Amino acid sequence: MPLQNDRLLRALARQPVDRTPVWLMRQAGRFLPEYRATRARAGSFMGLATNPELACEVTLQPVQRFALDAAIVFSDILTIPDAMGLGLSFETGEGPRFARPVRSNADIAKLAVPDMDTELRYVMDAVRLIRRELGGKVPLIGFSGSPFTLACYMVEGSGSDNFARVKMLALDDPAALHRLLDVVSEAVIAYLAAQRAAGAQALMVFDTWGGTLAPHLYREFSLRYLTRIAQTLARGEGSERTPLILFGKGNAPYLEDLAASGAEGIGVDWTVSLAEARVRCAGKVAIQGNLDPSTLYASPDAIRREVRRTLDSYGPGPGHVFNLGHGLAPDMDPEHVRVLVDAVHEFSAQ
Amino acid sequence: MPLQNDRLLRALARQPVDRTPVWLMRQAGRFLPEYRATRARAGSFMGLATNPELACEVTLQPVQRFALDAAIVFSDILTIPDAMGLGLSFETGEGPRFARPVRSNADIAKLAVPDMDTELRYVMDAVRLIRRELGGKVPLIGFSGSPFTLACYMVEGSGSDNFARVKMLALDDPAALHRLLDVVSEAVIAYLAAQRAAGAQALMVFDTWGGTLAPHLYREFSLRYLTRIAQTLARGEGSERTPLILFGKGNAPYLEDLAASGAEGIGVDWTVSLAEARVRCAGKVAIQGNLDPSTLYASPDAIRREVRRTLDSYGPGPGHVFNLGHGLAPDMDPEHVRVLVDAVHEFSAQ
Repeated sequence: MPLQNDRLLRALARQPVDRTPVWLMRQAGRFLPEYRATRARAGSFMGLATNPELACEVTLQPVQRFALDAAIVFSDILTIPDAMGLGLSFETGEGPRFARPVRSNADIAKLAVPDMDTELRYVMDAVRLIRRELGGKVPLIGFSGSPFTLACYMVEGSGSDNFARVKMLALDDPAALHRLLDVVSEAVIAYLAAQRAAGAQALMVFDTWGGTLAPHLYREFSLRYLTRIAQTLARGEGSERTPLILFGKGNAPYLEDLAASGAEGIGVDWTVSLAEARVRCAGKVAIQGNLDPSTLYASPDAIRREVRRTLDSYGPGPGHVFNLGHGLAPDMDPEHVRVLVDAVHEFSAQ
Repeated sequence: MPLQNDRLLRALARQPVDRTPVWLMRQAGRFLPEYRATRARAGSFMGLATNPELACEVTLQPVQRFALDAAIVFSDILTIPDAMGLGLSFETGEGPRFARPVRSNADIAKLAVPDMDTELRYVMDAVRLIRRELGGKVPLIGFSGSPFTLACYMVEGSGSDNFARVKMLALDDPAALHRLLDVVSEAVIAYLAAQRAAGAQALMVFDTWGGTLAPHLYREFSLRYLTRIAQTLARGEGSERTPLILFGKGNAPYLEDLAASGAEGIGVDWTVSLAEARVRCAGKVAIQGNLDPSTLYASPDAIRREVRRTLDSYGPGPGHVFNLGHGLAPDMDPEHVRVLVDAVHEFSAQ
């Protein structure tokens, strides 16, 4: 099936587009009543994520409802550590939790890259099914958590205010944290390559927590592994490379490094202007972002104004993928999301 | 009583010091067993903060235990809105909460600058008592929350993950938010001036939440009012100006603006290196910071290494006040805090 809407892929290749492509982090999620209905049928979050038919259903919902230019496979960033045996669950209102967090060198030594054809087959099955069901309407993005972000959850056992345990490990036994990041990075590379083989047309890495590190530790424990992923995926299988986007909350101080990583796109949060991000990335990559998601709580007029400001901040010329600076929240109004998506296309039309 | 330790004031004036001065945000707090004992006697957090004798006692505790170069009056950033009638309380494990948050233009119109001699007298009484009890051992810092940070709590009614209400107000009724920030700024200026008159030898403004704004909104709703405070306090009463430090979590993108605000010192979090902060502030101000507080969970050896790295990052020459990039946490080990404080003095000795 030929791709009917290639705006995302053209923008990531920094080629001209008729309108700026737009998709939204967590666009398949609780703010949509149809998602909540499917989620209720699935019984649990992981029940939904591990069922390819239901994952396909919720992936398609926002693409059916809004004029979005991409779909992103419905999954979770923590599927890799779950497949490594850590035992992922989601307590209501509590966020993710691992039954068996990584707490010792022996725990790290036991970790191995999961088998993509068996242990993470449900993700690849979902990718294949979604590609078929999309019928070429928009491209499909596959994704993974970043090595450092996965290590945060694996070591802490859950989310954290201060990441005390993983930062302690970084300072007191950096070699151990590097061993952990090494095996996780190999797993991320295999996971992204498998999603690509299953049909993902763009790939994205979410580095949610790298930005909580001091600069010397970010470079050592997050940037190094993001770069390895970008470089290793670059040595793909001869054909055209599937574009890779590196998103990081708080990654603004490192845009020059990220632009030189080998990735095709850099996703930024809203604390840096796109004008500045564009200058600092110096035309080496496309830039994805970066409206503050809280903008969606404001009136439609204000949303349209801020969309226009975001487009103006990037300025003319190719290489912009419109997105939020972070994910949609459950209490956001789907009609406000529609206003945002339509405004991106309206204001960016040539 | 002559001041026996003027390292802080000399560093803020960018004059040479024999050792880099060090104090720690939230140094009077729950990580100290003697604090927890006084807090238990007070019954509640506000019972402690509003009792000058007990506030004096907990202010002095860290100065007695560690070789700190400054004391900071024990208080809360939310005393001003409380005195404006919003009804502050602290639920256990919940953080601050206002009984009567600001939810309408009528609510904003009712706000007035509190009377410092009556409604906030307990703070000035604490400042006077602490100055007397310190006996000139180290200087005393007075402080306030920043206008935008106070507005966040006043509008949301409590802490927030996303500051949806205040950001909605910024976009949908910016004039209303400016009216709110205007009266709060006047109150902050009066409050800092009153603490100075009561004996505070340095002043600090905590802009905890300004960094959550997009750049154009930060400049309009946070930076503008920080600058007004710095400029207005500059027009003091003829004598030597009491130095002002502007701290902001996530303020790294705005260091050039903050250095030009008129403040004597800029406090930064750990996501920017002091080397970069120093270059960007171009010698106009002293810089305070910026060790990641989570460093204190690591071993004494690692703490010493990171202290040395922080000092080296600032480099030689005057104008550095050592601090954390954010406050101490209740589960930190006082002996690790001692290692940090002593290492700052040891490594910075000429």
